[in-house]
Amino acid sequence: MPHPNFVPPLCFRRSLAGAFLGALLCCAFAFAQPHSQIPDLTKDVYPFLGVDWGGNTFVGAALPFGMVKAGPDMEDFDSRASKFGYMSGGRILGFSHLHLSGAAGKYGNILVAPVTGPLDPSDISSPRTEEVNHPGYYAATLTRYATRAEITASRRVALHRYTFPASEQSHLTLNLDHCLNKGLGWEDQKFLGGELHITSDHEAAGMGRYTGGWNRGGEYRVYFYLVLDTPSRTQQIWTGKTLTGTRDASITSDQPFGLSFDFHTKAGQTIQTKVALSFISTAQARDSLQRETPGWNFNAVRQASVATWNRALSPMQLQGATPEQRREFYTALYHVMLMPSDRTGENPVWQSNEPYYDDFQAIWDTFRSSGPLLTLIAPDRQRDMLRSLIDTYRHTGYMPDARVGNDNGRTQGGSNANILIADAYVKGMTSIDYPTAFAAMLKDAEVPPQDSQKEGRGGLRDYNTRGYVTLDDQRSGSRTVEYSYDDFGIAEVACGLHRDKEAKLFATTSSNWQNLWDKNLANDGFTGFLRPRNPDGTWAAPNTLVRGTWPDFFYEGDLWTYSLYAPHDVAKLIELSGGKENFVRRLDRLFQHQHFDVTNEPGFLLPVLYNWAGRPDHTADVIRVYLDKFFSARRSGLPGNDDSGAMSSWFLFQSIGFYPNAGQDIYLIGTPSYPEVDITVAPGKVFRVIADNLDAEHINRYVQSATLNGEPLTTSWFRHSQIKSGGTLILHMGSAPTSWGTTNLPPSMSDVISPLCSAARPH
Amino acid sequence: MPHPNFVPPLCFRRSLAGAFLGALLCCAFAFAQPHSQIPDLTKDVYPFLGVDWGGNTFVGAALPFGMVKAGPDMEDFDSRASKFGYMSGGRILGFSHLHLSGAAGKYGNILVAPVTGPLDPSDISSPRTEEVNHPGYYAATLTRYATRAEITASRRVALHRYTFPASEQSHLTLNLDHCLNKGLGWEDQKFLGGELHITSDHEAAGMGRYTGGWNRGGEYRVYFYLVLDTPSRTQQIWTGKTLTGTRDASITSDQPFGLSFDFHTKAGQTIQTKVALSFISTAQARDSLQRETPGWNFNAVRQASVATWNRALSPMQLQGATPEQRREFYTALYHVMLMPSDRTGENPVWQSNEPYYDDFQAIWDTFRSSGPLLTLIAPDRQRDMLRSLIDTYRHTGYMPDARVGNDNGRTQGGSNANILIADAYVKGMTSIDYPTAFAAMLKDAEVPPQDSQKEGRGGLRDYNTRGYVTLDDQRSGSRTVEYSYDDFGIAEVACGLHRDKEAKLFATTSSNWQNLWDKNLANDGFTGFLRPRNPDGTWAAPNTLVRGTWPDFFYEGDLWTYSLYAPHDVAKLIELSGGKENFVRRLDRLFQHQHFDVTNEPGFLLPVLYNWAGRPDHTADVIRVYLDKFFSARRSGLPGNDDSGAMSSWFLFQSIGFYPNAGQDIYLIGTPSYPEVDITVAPGKVFRVIADNLDAEHINRYVQSATLNGEPLTTSWFRHSQIKSGGTLILHMGSAPTSWGTTNLPPSMSDVISPLCSAARPH
Repeated sequence: MPHPNFVPPLCFRRSLAGAFLGALLCCAFAFAQPHSQIPDLTKDVYPFLGVDWGGNTFVGAALPFGMVKAGPDMEDFDSRASKFGYMSGGRILGFSHLHLSGAAGKYGNILVAPVTGPLDPSDISSPRTEEVNHPGYYAATLTRYATRAEITASRRVALHRYTFPASEQSHLTLNLDHCLNKGLGWEDQKFLGGELHITSDHEAAGMGRYTGGWNRGGEYRVYFYLVLDTPSRTQQIWTGKTLTGTRDASITSDQPFGLSFDFHTKAGQTIQTKVALSFISTAQARDSLQRETPGWNFNAVRQASVATWNRALSPMQLQGATPEQRREFYTALYHVMLMPSDRTGENPVWQSNEPYYDDFQAIWDTFRSSGPLLTLIAPDRQRDMLRSLIDTYRHTGYMPDARVGNDNGRTQGGSNANILIADAYVKGMTSIDYPTAFAAMLKDAEVPPQDSQKEGRGGLRDYNTRGYVTLDDQRSGSRTVEYSYDDFGIAEVACGLHRDKEAKLFATTSSNWQNLWDKNLANDGFTGFLRPRNPDGTWAAPNTLVRGTWPDFFYEGDLWTYSLYAPHDVAKLIELSGGKENFVRRLDRLFQHQHFDVTNEPGFLLPVLYNWAGRPDHTADVIRVYLDKFFSARRSGLPGNDDSGAMSSWFLFQSIGFYPNAGQDIYLIGTPSYPEVDITVAPGKVFRVIADNLDAEHINRYVQSATLNGEPLTTSWFRHSQIKSGGTLILHMGSAPTSWGTTNLPPSMSDVISPLCSAARPH
Repeated sequence: MPHPNFVPPLCFRRSLAGAFLGALLCCAFAFAQPHSQIPDLTKDVYPFLGVDWGGNTFVGAALPFGMVKAGPDMEDFDSRASKFGYMSGGRILGFSHLHLSGAAGKYGNILVAPVTGPLDPSDISSPRTEEVNHPGYYAATLTRYATRAEITASRRVALHRYTFPASEQSHLTLNLDHCLNKGLGWEDQKFLGGELHITSDHEAAGMGRYTGGWNRGGEYRVYFYLVLDTPSRTQQIWTGKTLTGTRDASITSDQPFGLSFDFHTKAGQTIQTKVALSFISTAQARDSLQRETPGWNFNAVRQASVATWNRALSPMQLQGATPEQRREFYTALYHVMLMPSDRTGENPVWQSNEPYYDDFQAIWDTFRSSGPLLTLIAPDRQRDMLRSLIDTYRHTGYMPDARVGNDNGRTQGGSNANILIADAYVKGMTSIDYPTAFAAMLKDAEVPPQDSQKEGRGGLRDYNTRGYVTLDDQRSGSRTVEYSYDDFGIAEVACGLHRDKEAKLFATTSSNWQNLWDKNLANDGFTGFLRPRNPDGTWAAPNTLVRGTWPDFFYEGDLWTYSLYAPHDVAKLIELSGGKENFVRRLDRLFQHQHFDVTNEPGFLLPVLYNWAGRPDHTADVIRVYLDKFFSARRSGLPGNDDSGAMSSWFLFQSIGFYPNAGQDIYLIGTPSYPEVDITVAPGKVFRVIADNLDAEHINRYVQSATLNGEPLTTSWFRHSQIKSGGTLILHMGSAPTSWGTTNLPPSMSDVISPLCSAARPH
């Protein structure tokens, strides 16, 4: 266990205007190998993976967890607006500088676009061709303008290079009112106004004000500073439909608003521009620009970005895989590392020396496998995020379930930052202020929020008095089971922190999910499911089932999925389901009848539940077919929304061959896809996962026997403590199940929490 | 138009015991290129494609449309029976000789398996490894027995080669009671008994009786003759649990029943066996064996099979595609050519000189694109199938909607053999007895069947009196719209045959689908959908919608899909939907909200409906993403059941870049996936489809302009008559839509049928 109060002299204790780049190099990639040994893993990254089936993965140029994510926004087919940002079809409106990855409905600010010919700000979009995207580099030819556009980026600055044709009228435009998902309803973004200043023939600055979007957050302001490498002949600002020669303009409503630098260009003439962003001021944007990208060497900025990506990707070394597998693997890792955004030094809401991350959209998605993955391969990064969440609690009163645009919200299910803290705690992560984290967890569990869509736990009063959320509140089913597991995480940390009273209390309330279990409720041949309770505690009427559940009882998952959500007490699920054999039959039915929705997070743990029933062969069968069917190296290669890399992290763990039970120090073994993965888990410490006797057809999907660190491993699970200093897991594979993994089943409930309490007690 | 009464002296006019192989070579592959020019296309075929996501594609060895399809049957995880035949997981029970492809629930007869060690007939299954499958060849090592199993096949004979380890007790077993989908409910198969005869130390013969399965058909009998290349030391027969040395046995109930040849084997000793099947007699099985595979040269049989497959695949030459694309493409073509089964000479039900095909499971699946595909690339094969259907009408009273195990049934939606006949007729296929075909079509349209699950049109009385099927019958919605289109097919043929009265009548009734159109019915923002009518003609109550429709109103498709099913009158659909713009919005909504179920056939035509509204760019977007997302070269590479190759044929057309409107001489242009496909449409006549400016990312998905046979093609459609003698279609591609295809829209209704009538009238 980490000493909970130990806060070391961190290299990221820094002043607000301090040397962030230095801090980044100091902390984020402490495990990186010497440069000379690093192969170029970015060549295996295919950023387009996932864009064509709702993956919403970011296309453009960004650093790992970079603040600036600069990429193209495409016009929707039937409007001149852009809903999602990138699309494989559709015309490019221009290149904006803030994006999410694996999520939608926010940002798309500060849109830059080249134009040739007469300038009509209302009609700038162009078809494109010869589009490429690699980590830190995006390029396309805008056919309408015969102009090649290239972008690279540092953390807060994008560098654009445009290669123009010969033209008497070439323009470099900036559109301030553009943002994604504008005017499209309840979750739309709004442009509130802003200001533009043309400060020389090659410089401009300004600020835009935006609000709304997916999290329905409050106003956020984006400051920019733009500089060109080529003086323009004339400059213009448009407000509404009017183009004028004014140098300064501001508006306070949503209307077309932008500027243009105008040129005569020769054939093949390049014009470069740097666009720096800040959430603090145009001055800070300008400072960042000068510090991060002082010159005009496009290739040097690109190469620095590639080097940074290689360091970020290097803790995972895939051996013996096919080119397609490498592409899937490293692209998934790339996608995990695009979100959230490191906004340290760019927090306009409060001042602090702690790291500041934004764009948790949402922790409800990422706590299940992205968090545990980063804890494994980039613990310093994960620690910084957790410190940011704890600092957010200090200043907003809550660790958010989601946060974007410098505002908490929207909550999805539970208060799952609790699980992230518990996960770090049980895995021995240091340099976390656990007492404050624990206070934040108690706040979630004890204090009903003013606005439960924004933060905290909705329906908490019922939950804390009755032991379950009732139909008085939305999502009473998913909230009840998630709060129960969140409570388990609190109990774990309480135990370690000698908070015996809370440890006992929350260990008790972690069984609250059972209060909604109706042992008589039948569905599709099985009995015993969650059922809503009315505000007076009676069972809800056997309402018309909507997709296998009551309306608004569960959030984004069905009766079969949420009824088996008790990651801390699968043994009890098995008991309530009538024993192991019935439980296995029930899981079989669940998968056969496609209650497992691989496109969404609530069911992420379902495939490995077989391990608790001693049937890791069924786990292997399920994982094999879902990996094969729903993941590929194509543009449609994700089953659904990547959700900030959550989906990609599920793929990574499952394809390596084990999966975390987030919030506990347990990994469940499934079936490996690769001969070997070498995972650097600490400086110089490598955990090797070796699959022996794999075949290309993946018929040999069943573990026959295994060793961990040279000792026989007869269980289908192991602990984080067994691998945290490196080691070797060897899985011997075969084409038919054996008795491996059928006994000594994974722990549940007191088996998890008791060792934690006893281990911590001596402190 | 073909002269309807012309029946030429066919090379397949033959006696029942005649030279079938000669006939096969004479007719089936008349277009084959000389052998020396044929590349080995079978290397691009990956028979495992589709096995892991319900594709149910056949794994094993078979000829194109071969009667014998010999391959492994896997034990289900939780029983010793085999439900589907092949599975990627699970143990091999043995190798049976009759299978469907892309369908399930029938066959799996005459199971042969090697055993070493003591023989327990109730426990023979083994894990396997090193499994390979190529056209005409399957192999796996049965690890329990350390025995390599290899199979190849001719049309009616499988040749097995087993390489044994050293063993005092080696066995070659044959299980007669085994069949797929046994004892699993309403659609299960039953073993009714049979007989076994050991006729020498290296020969056996026998017959099994089976019934039921997917089509709930009557009894079918499978005769076999087996011969070994190695004399056995002893022979045994088991009945129930008893193994005896008896030479002849018979049973009349379902109990374990099989035989074993016993050997001492040296390490690496091979034992070969040939198993011939017949539906007529063991004598005929023996005759086939001697004629088709007279020697013991395994490799020669395999090479002959490969050569036959190469001839079958050769009419499609893919140019410039990636290896993965080639694998998808030629595997799809292979899958199209596994079904139905050519049983000419093996019809136990009636005697006739016509070709005999079984295993139409179901025409409801295949009429949409498999039929038109074979008409394009293997018209002689398609002609033989149609002649078989017409002959089935002669002898059973109906052209079936499905037929398997020598019995008609089960009907799915309409009487879609009508569309197959119409498709052949409008495309000028000769050597069809159209007057008899027309009589069969009239029978469908006029005579209610005794058992509407078996054949004919259910609910016909209501349909023919009220103009729609009512809730008195099942599937009243899908039946009404399918019958309407079937009537259109009848009208087309009537027109050509100068049956003016019927032409007029069925052209009128082909609008019957409109009688269920409720212009006020709203769903998800759109108005005007099909709605059921009560037996008294009143609208059904606005019932609780189940997945977007009323219970049992539609068969395997929803309200959005079936409401737009009028392949002959899309113009009317557009009018009823409020004009082109609303229709496009409606289609957009349909795809966005995933009403298009790519896993099933009812929606096959939906993507190209945009062409009728002048928006082929939307067609391109939809096809691009569905091909990319749901089809791959993997074991899970089909979206769902291949349905006798129906799904594969949809993929083939759409990936080449055009799609047939089955039953009409029209093809709709979508978006091509390959630089060039050369399609041999008649001996020496090649139709080349060339896509210019395709990019690897498929951003250039929109046709900018096109030429057909050197002339500009401004429409997004063309006629079969324009390509039936070969030619060249060049599609110039780009990354943004143009005005191409927005005018001169595809024909509807009278535009289709009028030219047909006027053209035929002079005869």
